[in-house]
Amino acid sequence: MSKGKPVLWAELSWPEMEKVLASTDTVLLPVGSTEQHGRHLPLGVDIFIPVDIARRVSAETGVPVLPSVNFVPCAWHECFPGAISITPRVLISQLVDIARSLQNYGVRNIILVNGHTGGCDSTLVAAADEVLQETACRFYIASVVDVAADEVLSICSSPVLGHADEVETAKMMAIRPDLVHIEGVKANDREPKSGYLSVNYRRKSRIFFRTSKEDWKALAPEGYIGDPSAATPEKGEAMLSRIASEISGFIKDLENGHVI
Amino acid sequence: MSKGKPVLWAELSWPEMEKVLASTDTVLLPVGSTEQHGRHLPLGVDIFIPVDIARRVSAETGVPVLPSVNFVPCAWHECFPGAISITPRVLISQLVDIARSLQNYGVRNIILVNGHTGGCDSTLVAAADEVLQETACRFYIASVVDVAADEVLSICSSPVLGHADEVETAKMMAIRPDLVHIEGVKANDREPKSGYLSVNYRRKSRIFFRTSKEDWKALAPEGYIGDPSAATPEKGEAMLSRIASEISGFIKDLENGHVI
Amino acid sequence: MSKGKPVLWAELSWPEMEKVLASTDTVLLPVGSTEQHGRHLPLGVDIFIPVDIARRVSAETGVPVLPSVNFVPCAWHECFPGAISITPRVLISQLVDIARSLQNYGVRNIILVNGHTGGCDSTLVAAADEVLQETACRFYIASVVDVAADEVLSICSSPVLGHADEVETAKMMAIRPDLVHIEGVKANDREPKSGYLSVNYRRKSRIFFRTSKEDWKALAPEGYIGDPSAATPEKGEAMLSRIASEISGFIKDLENGHVI
Amino acid sequence: MSKGKPVLWAELSWPEMEKVLASTDTVLLPVGSTEQHGRHLPLGVDIFIPVDIARRVSAETGVPVLPSVNFVPCAWHECFPGAISITPRVLISQLVDIARSLQNYGVRNIILVNGHTGGCDSTLVAAADEVLQETACRFYIASVVDVAADEVLSICSSPVLGHADEVETAKMMAIRPDLVHIEGVKANDREPKSGYLSVNYRRKSRIFFRTSKEDWKALAPEGYIGDPSAATPEKGEAMLSRIASEISGFIKDLENGHVI
Amino acid sequence: MSKGKPVLWAELSWPEMEKVLASTDTVLLPVGSTEQHGRHLPLGVDIFIPVDIARRVSAETGVPVLPSVNFVPCAWHECFPGAISITPRVLISQLVDIARSLQNYGVRNIILVNGHTGGCDSTLVAAADEVLQETACRFYIASVVDVAADEVLSICSSPVLGHADEVETAKMMAIRPDLVHIEGVKANDREPKSGYLSVNYRRKSRIFFRTSKEDWKALAPEGYIGDPSAATPEKGEAMLSRIASEISGFIKDLENGHVI
Amino acid sequence: MSKGKPVLWAELSWPEMEKVLASTDTVLLPVGSTEQHGRHLPLGVDIFIPVDIARRVSAETGVPVLPSVNFVPCAWHECFPGAISITPRVLISQLVDIARSLQNYGVRNIILVNGHTGGCDSTLVAAADEVLQETACRFYIASVVDVAADEVLSICSSPVLGHADEVETAKMMAIRPDLVHIEGVKANDREPKSGYLSVNYRRKSRIFFRTSKEDWKALAPEGYIGDPSAATPEKGEAMLSRIASEISGFIKDLENGHVI
Repeated sequence: MSKGKPVLWAELSWPEMEKVLASTDTVLLPVGSTEQHGRHLPLGVDIFIPVDIARRVSAETGVPVLPSVNFVPCAWHECFPGAISITPRVLISQLVDIARSLQNYGVRNIILVNGHTGGCDSTLVAAADEVLQETACRFYIASVVDVAADEVLSICSSPVLGHADEVETAKMMAIRPDLVHIEGVKANDREPKSGYLSVNYRRKSRIFFRTSKEDWKALAPEGYIGDPSAATPEKGEAMLSRIASEISGFIKDLENGHVI
Repeated sequence: MSKGKPVLWAELSWPEMEKVLASTDTVLLPVGSTEQHGRHLPLGVDIFIPVDIARRVSAETGVPVLPSVNFVPCAWHECFPGAISITPRVLISQLVDIARSLQNYGVRNIILVNGHTGGCDSTLVAAADEVLQETACRFYIASVVDVAADEVLSICSSPVLGHADEVETAKMMAIRPDLVHIEGVKANDREPKSGYLSVNYRRKSRIFFRTSKEDWKALAPEGYIGDPSAATPEKGEAMLSRIASEISGFIKDLENGHVI
Repeated sequence: MSKGKPVLWAELSWPEMEKVLASTDTVLLPVGSTEQHGRHLPLGVDIFIPVDIARRVSAETGVPVLPSVNFVPCAWHECFPGAISITPRVLISQLVDIARSLQNYGVRNIILVNGHTGGCDSTLVAAADEVLQETACRFYIASVVDVAADEVLSICSSPVLGHADEVETAKMMAIRPDLVHIEGVKANDREPKSGYLSVNYRRKSRIFFRTSKEDWKALAPEGYIGDPSAATPEKGEAMLSRIASEISGFIKDLENGHVI
Repeated sequence: MSKGKPVLWAELSWPEMEKVLASTDTVLLPVGSTEQHGRHLPLGVDIFIPVDIARRVSAETGVPVLPSVNFVPCAWHECFPGAISITPRVLISQLVDIARSLQNYGVRNIILVNGHTGGCDSTLVAAADEVLQETACRFYIASVVDVAADEVLSICSSPVLGHADEVETAKMMAIRPDLVHIEGVKANDREPKSGYLSVNYRRKSRIFFRTSKEDWKALAPEGYIGDPSAATPEKGEAMLSRIASEISGFIKDLENGHVI
Repeated sequence: MSKGKPVLWAELSWPEMEKVLASTDTVLLPVGSTEQHGRHLPLGVDIFIPVDIARRVSAETGVPVLPSVNFVPCAWHECFPGAISITPRVLISQLVDIARSLQNYGVRNIILVNGHTGGCDSTLVAAADEVLQETACRFYIASVVDVAADEVLSICSSPVLGHADEVETAKMMAIRPDLVHIEGVKANDREPKSGYLSVNYRRKSRIFFRTSKEDWKALAPEGYIGDPSAATPEKGEAMLSRIASEISGFIKDLENGHVI
Repeated sequence: MSKGKPVLWAELSWPEMEKVLASTDTVLLPVGSTEQHGRHLPLGVDIFIPVDIARRVSAETGVPVLPSVNFVPCAWHECFPGAISITPRVLISQLVDIARSLQNYGVRNIILVNGHTGGCDSTLVAAADEVLQETACRFYIASVVDVAADEVLSICSSPVLGHADEVETAKMMAIRPDLVHIEGVKANDREPKSGYLSVNYRRKSRIFFRTSKEDWKALAPEGYIGDPSAATPEKGEAMLSRIASEISGFIKDLENGHVI
């Protein structure tokens, strides 16, 4: 796969945009949450990561990256300062409007690169239903914890993955090391039953419920679950690269009509 | 676990209701889709199954069963006659209203027994976010394909599971055998890459998209994916029993404060 | 009018559905409230009755019966445990979505068999306005207290009719006698001015207002108005039969182009 | 009942308003449709009439009259030029907002004097449900065709009443004779089965449906149903006076706690 | 410009309406607030003025005047009795519906004559965006403080203009002198930095914020800002005449294709 | 005014956020449009500029900068590829949700730095009305064309200012010179009557209407109005600095209670 520069929507003039859209009907839309990520990571983690991945995918595929959607549902993080939560119905409305505009330029495939997995992927799927009914576009939801999950897991060494954990810390070390303050952060193993973060009750019953602010604070007194100290920038780079590669492969399949 | 009779909301007088709600703050709400399930199963499969499971759970736990929500998002099934689809935003609004009423009687835990897994579980999660913010209640989403999934899978013999497949056919044979017309139905293995129905592109990349009506008709020309001929009423009974037992266990944990 | 078996949407496979919809563009949608009906009747009265009537009409006409809408506006009954109220705007949205799906299969006439007369008929009419503007379908609202009202009244012997009264008790005796507990229930004549339940202030001025929870409790300390003790299953059977016959006649007129 | 001058909200300064609201917690809100009324009456009939009645009631009771709501659902009249229709959900939202403001000044009873009976009374009832739940106010819906209906009917001489008929023509002759052009207008008896306008199919079955634009044009080729030529200003004056008196009596009962 | 009589929508029959709409595709819609205007002016000022101006414009141009929209956002005036505020989203919905009906009759240009400048002009612009996208109509917003502002200012003698000030008082003296009670009213110069009312912080920075109820009461203890005592009916007549003439000129330009 | 580093919400951990919010209850929210800006400027101009200004203000005042809202109403720019438009009602809903979250952390003043003046400032004002009613926060709308407008104008040399003009080009030269491609771009003086861009018909009448896509293409065949060739990075720097300084001064006044 030939490497190029990312194609950033906000940095193109309209004649450049016109040229890009003549060559592809696929676009990348980073979506993420503004919410706390422990003492060692910044509030923007769920945006930095999908934006970084989307740029990598764009560099590989030439598919343009839209400006990011920075506010999504995350009310259960409001127990720490800084989380900004949008209700699901409002996010759906916003995403339908975005698709409605994009269809005017011949766009048909919108890849939502979602940095807030377990958080807003459900709302994105609900939006996908409405977009499919009301526009000529279709949403493809690539949540950063789902894509290439097995390979990401194989890179990890910590037993518990949760929030602001080894995975997110490693990725941020690769993207913005200046914003990672790992010194003195210890493992929080409060979610001992599963190998990977699950908002579900327990893997075997798979009964889902959303944690409340109070639940969240009890599970994660400092805002994180897992062991951030296991993270390294090399692991983060490997994860980001692998996820981007998977999404790029999906786009190739899509362009070649190999999906469905 | 002692067995009793199911406690049906619609069949209680208000003084009986009062007594029930004095003993529990948990309720069961069956949610399902009215949509096609091949030539061999009726349109109400996704409602018959969660209602049956909810009644079993109620008999085990004494928790009451609300009347069912019979219309949810399923527009991709409109390629066959009879599917009735509600948009996600409207379903969310309806579920928030239901929770708002239930909180008046001291109800705090609402178990959504969802028969339309892969279909409306995402919208139910979005609703769960709003209910948690706007009411004193919490939603617990028990989708019938997720709960006890490993045990259900171990009962199956067909290689591909999808829609109106061995699992749903077996369950309906146990619930309403008169509505199952299996003669001459052959396996449709159109989704060869995974062992269990996935609306996702492929398991390893986990990039989600909703199939359109056209996709669905191409994948399932008769409306089903999998091998209905592998179903037996005994298998169905075992599956229903196991799922009900899992949900009942969850409710016990909930009542004992063992969840979270 | 030849008698057959009711045609139940949820029990048909899509090829059966296809055949039904080739022969008629009319469907029956039972709509009812989950709300208290005194100590002697269950919470589901307003659903049991329209479902029963719809099945009778279907048996007479071959028109299919959709799964029921079980939650509608009834906040004034929340003074007793168990009432679940949906706001009018949400119910309208849901009904418009249902009609939007139905129009895809050639359905044009949707008979709403409404068990919650005086309760949600107004919201159903508001929905009818929107459905007429936004879809190819039309709503026909058959509220069970309005249809064949004179004949139903002539069957009654009690001076006051209200809620969970002689009429509803008799109908339930015919449908589900096991759920009627009439022993010791006395007449409540709190609404002495009219012969038939009216939510209006007084018949002659016809100024409408909705009773509040407090009003309702004052009028009906046990949850009912009227004299349930006057009910018999024979009366109930006669009422149900007469109402069903009236709706069936309407459908015949509709099919013959005799309406409007 | 002592006669005074009407108290018009729009003509009072805030100190005068303050004084009025210290003496009553009841207000009058005229609501009407902007829609065609035949060749002989103007588009504003459904507003002129409730405004006139509200002023009469105000003069009798001292209760203030709000500015009118001039746009409501009436899409079935769009077959003639000039009808402006608002969807029910939007009208409900607007009325809830009005009640929310009014509650700030101690208003508790809002009498909706509705000139568009059979048209928007259902939407007003749906709004009444929401207002009762969300505000400290209550709506009382006085539709001008319902209030004192028997007395109004006894004044009429024409066999068929419908739209822009003897009743509406007579009232307009009393209010704005300059806008009535009755010469050459003949009776249209297209709705022969009932003595008074009904949008229902037939009185005995009482199955409601909304007429479409096409239906309406077929029933009323010139836009009216009934016999406008039977109208006189004296009849109109008697009708208006009787309706106003009935509403005034209701307000007195309300103030004396005699309602419910 | 030849003078005629105003063409009032509510006073026309549909055949008259048809004739009017055959000659123009432009209409006038007065929009105003029901809100306090000091001790000397009535609550309806923001409606009386645009209705008067619209009638003048209609007399000059033959363009018809719709019934007025009487309730708009004005929550900051609820510190005095009588203000009725509608939320912006609800007003937008209502205006989109009005335009949707009007487009059926060939209307393309809707002139909103807005009496509540600084109050709802922003919501009207937001509505204009939606109307342009969703209908065949376009909104033209003529706020009475903006149109011909220089000429209106040149007529004034008071140094501060705000609310219920020299301008509004003068206009009301010309329209309804019986509702103006100016005796003893003194100048309130609380907004000393600008020559004309601005809801902005200060002219040079132009950072907008909406005053709260508390702010408003602090700025205008009696409900007005400016010097009502400088008003005369002659000034009012000159202002109204000039504004009407400006809007009439705009309509001529519009009809001649000279706009844009 | 002491200079520091901008305080970026997305780059802070929650303990850092907590410290910042202990020292101020004011935040900066950049809002902008993704839309075409001629052949010489990128689609993100309306976001780059308010983000840059917000960072300058933050550096001067210590007030934190939220992630930007990147999609707003701009449908009239869809005549060129790349514009993404959100409907006003959806943007209002989103902004109300953001304020609702922010109030949880003690935030009271939200400065919207709006890069899409003349475009979404009206919708922002409508949102300000709702935020003031429904939350403890208040919006202050600082549109980049309004703030310090006189000083910005005095820096310009071109006679016509419009869109993607001397002002926007100069600012982008100072912020991202690599994205400015000015060679060969000539002045477009299509809006000759005013010295500064106005979406209004003409300054003197101030009747507002939104240009349609067709209008816009006629006025700006290449997507810009004005003379980009007059821009220099020095002018841009001076403009940005002056605007930031003005907003900083406003914040100081706000903190000192000098506003209102």
